Amino acid sequence: MKIVIIGGVAAGAKAAAKARRLSQDAEIIVYTDDTHVSYSSCGLPYYIAGNFEDYRMLLVRSPEEFEEQGIKIRLRHKALKIVPDTKQVLIHNMNDNNVELVNYDKLIIATGARPFIPPIKNTELPNIFTVRKIEDGIRIKAKAITSKKVLIVGGGYIGMELLESFVMRNLKVTLVENSPHIMPMLDPEISEMIYEQLTSVCENRFEIIRGESVVEFCGDENGVTCVVLSSGQMIDTDFVILATGIRPNVEIAYDAGIELGITKAIKVNKRMETNIKDIYACGDCVEENLVINDSPAWIPLGSNANKEGRCAAINACGEFDEFNGVLASAVTRCLDLTISMTGLTESGARNSGIDPISVTVTKFDKVGYMPDVNNITLKLIADKKTGRLIGGQAIGAGDADKRINTLTSALLSKMTVEEFCQNDLTYAPPYSPTIDPLLNAAEILRSKLKKLNS
Amino acid sequence: MKIVIIGGVAAGAKAAAKARRLSQDAEIIVYTDDTHVSYSSCGLPYYIAGNFEDYRMLLVRSPEEFEEQGIKIRLRHKALKIVPDTKQVLIHNMNDNNVELVNYDKLIIATGARPFIPPIKNTELPNIFTVRKIEDGIRIKAKAITSKKVLIVGGGYIGMELLESFVMRNLKVTLVENSPHIMPMLDPEISEMIYEQLTSVCENRFEIIRGESVVEFCGDENGVTCVVLSSGQMIDTDFVILATGIRPNVEIAYDAGIELGITKAIKVNKRMETNIKDIYACGDCVEENLVINDSPAWIPLGSNANKEGRCAAINACGEFDEFNGVLASAVTRCLDLTISMTGLTESGARNSGIDPISVTVTKFDKVGYMPDVNNITLKLIADKKTGRLIGGQAIGAGDADKRINTLTSALLSKMTVEEFCQNDLTYAPPYSPTIDPLLNAAEILRSKLKKLNS
Repeated sequence: MKIVIIGGVAAGAKAAAKARRLSQDAEIIVYTDDTHVSYSSCGLPYYIAGNFEDYRMLLVRSPEEFEEQGIKIRLRHKALKIVPDTKQVLIHNMNDNNVELVNYDKLIIATGARPFIPPIKNTELPNIFTVRKIEDGIRIKAKAITSKKVLIVGGGYIGMELLESFVMRNLKVTLVENSPHIMPMLDPEISEMIYEQLTSVCENRFEIIRGESVVEFCGDENGVTCVVLSSGQMIDTDFVILATGIRPNVEIAYDAGIELGITKAIKVNKRMETNIKDIYACGDCVEENLVINDSPAWIPLGSNANKEGRCAAINACGEFDEFNGVLASAVTRCLDLTISMTGLTESGARNSGIDPISVTVTKFDKVGYMPDVNNITLKLIADKKTGRLIGGQAIGAGDADKRINTLTSALLSKMTVEEFCQNDLTYAPPYSPTIDPLLNAAEILRSKLKKLNS
Repeated sequence: MKIVIIGGVAAGAKAAAKARRLSQDAEIIVYTDDTHVSYSSCGLPYYIAGNFEDYRMLLVRSPEEFEEQGIKIRLRHKALKIVPDTKQVLIHNMNDNNVELVNYDKLIIATGARPFIPPIKNTELPNIFTVRKIEDGIRIKAKAITSKKVLIVGGGYIGMELLESFVMRNLKVTLVENSPHIMPMLDPEISEMIYEQLTSVCENRFEIIRGESVVEFCGDENGVTCVVLSSGQMIDTDFVILATGIRPNVEIAYDAGIELGITKAIKVNKRMETNIKDIYACGDCVEENLVINDSPAWIPLGSNANKEGRCAAINACGEFDEFNGVLASAVTRCLDLTISMTGLTESGARNSGIDPISVTVTKFDKVGYMPDVNNITLKLIADKKTGRLIGGQAIGAGDADKRINTLTSALLSKMTVEEFCQNDLTYAPPYSPTIDPLLNAAEILRSKLKKLNS
């Protein structure tokens, strides 16, 4: 049996490794147009920040390690076309410019995603970077070391993480977000708190501009020097980061007749099978099922990619596995602030036809007399009709994310607020108040729900 | 309506405050033989360590604050006898030595627990302390400041926390635990790891002696000077802490005909009602229901006390509330080590007739390239027959406890290992590896269960 995998960053690399463990005999070959396989893209902001110096720390597994296990790795080999009828893939070897047709018994598509380049004038100028591959990280870090100021376009996860990276490197940072709020995937009042908390510790190290778009980059063949905003404001900069989102790489799949979902990512079932027999897909190129309300969602994250790659491999090898979907859990850090969420936001709930009820509390994260006590703000969201918990958001110093993980188990088991109030969370003064903020919020939400029903 | 509350540390204080919120008219009066009300007993180790200087930081609410809300606080008033037939309590005013009979419409017993004094010779010598009340903390702290060495009897939660306190104060600490393991409420191999990790960072600051009991204290009217172990070894010390467990204060309830449970704590139903009409009980003096297997358990913790006090007050005020029980979740810190658990241990499962299956993993707590990466050891325990998760233990630096809280939600909803594997935990490099240790452990446990069933 020959298993061909297109793409080798997270899902593809995981699928290859898992397939090897399940089948000693299968021929396993990974084609990637990248110059690296099996690396942590999510680690680039910390590499750029200087948390560690050697980019090879980002490599989970080297090509040599794969080869030792009998997994063939073909770097700089771009898949041009899938021919399902003859079970072949057309591969372009970018090293010697040859093209060959490769047979497969099972094909796993793990083509990932690519940065979205917004329609701004002169995005092709030198020193305007996107952040996706190891090469991007190396180039950005080199540029950061010799620069004084940087402008980041986009205030989502990557933008906020890079804000931290560049502040750590003592660059003056300007971040421009065109929507009225940074972290616009959160509910607006939570995004507003993030903005307030960050600007309160800014100390002239960075500036966050919201509600304005970048309309033009200026510069010459030596690189970008200035950024023009929609207000007309011009900002000098040494380089620019475009952190304006990503799009799934689905063209090769679509051209082969593979069905896409409503999110424009590849549609797969729980076994990671596409609509074409013996073709699986996994990672950032596929659409997920949001288990809260069984609706399609596209949540491109390394954790999901790993689980999906594993699941695809198990099924491709003839065994049985299912990946039920995601809760849209996520976490990011910006300086000392942890920002985390799971499930539906309040606005997301409304958009999907759920009438939400919510509560937001700001409480100490441990008992008030402990020396390192901090505030944590927690928002809990429930379905007004059923009382079911459907989402949560947390911001604060330290382990705000782990409180969200306590919620993920509750969301997964479709727990109601009433049921969650009976939760027995660990307590000791260095770790939480006697009544954890989570239980405190749940208790208030429970009272609100009771009042509604009485 | 007159609500009389006996005891005012955690459950009693909470009950009083909640009753006031629910009823503006009720007469609410708290009798306590203590000199303080409404304080955080759990904070004593951090007060002793010097994390904060003023013991009043431990007070949640002062007597004056209660009085302002029309809650009467009677300090140093000991309840001697409950007379259910006439709905009266006999109270001894320790200030003026008067005794009076007090009427009640609703009585809430929150008498708490007291330290257990083991049968060791000469425990009455000066400078042998137990740790329960604010006065204990004040005396111990004063003694610690002028001392060089201390011996702690008992390696449970309080013993381990005080080990940290005294190490922080640069005392030479000897801890003696008579069972073969410290933290004997955990499974032995986890306790062993705690021992190894602590002794590896000990640097002569402390010594932990296991499997030996203290048989005698020596000294004179100036205080204890030496401790004799079962081996004959004699250890010089400036003072001694007895951290050998606690017992529920149930005598006054028992004498009044109130039923005790199998754990010897007061038996209550989910509404915190005792077997006698209009008498409620809550806090460290009551028995809880362990929801994992609906069995009686006695888990005296501040978090439980608060929830129970609240529940008792709601029901005493004529409304309806239920406290379903506990998961036996707990956390403690000893120096840099977080020790946390929930549910049944493997041995506890066996003792309660469940055939357990478990897995223990030691993994990084975040992605390996992050500068502050640490190990976390996680043990997951499931019921072999049903595949249900029934317990977990975690040790490690930092937020090991929060991973246990992710489990509590799963235990509460009676999730199987198979279901838990579909959990979508937050991921970013500063917070967890791509696959969190929890999911990693669950995945291994799932494979083990699959093999058993195939």
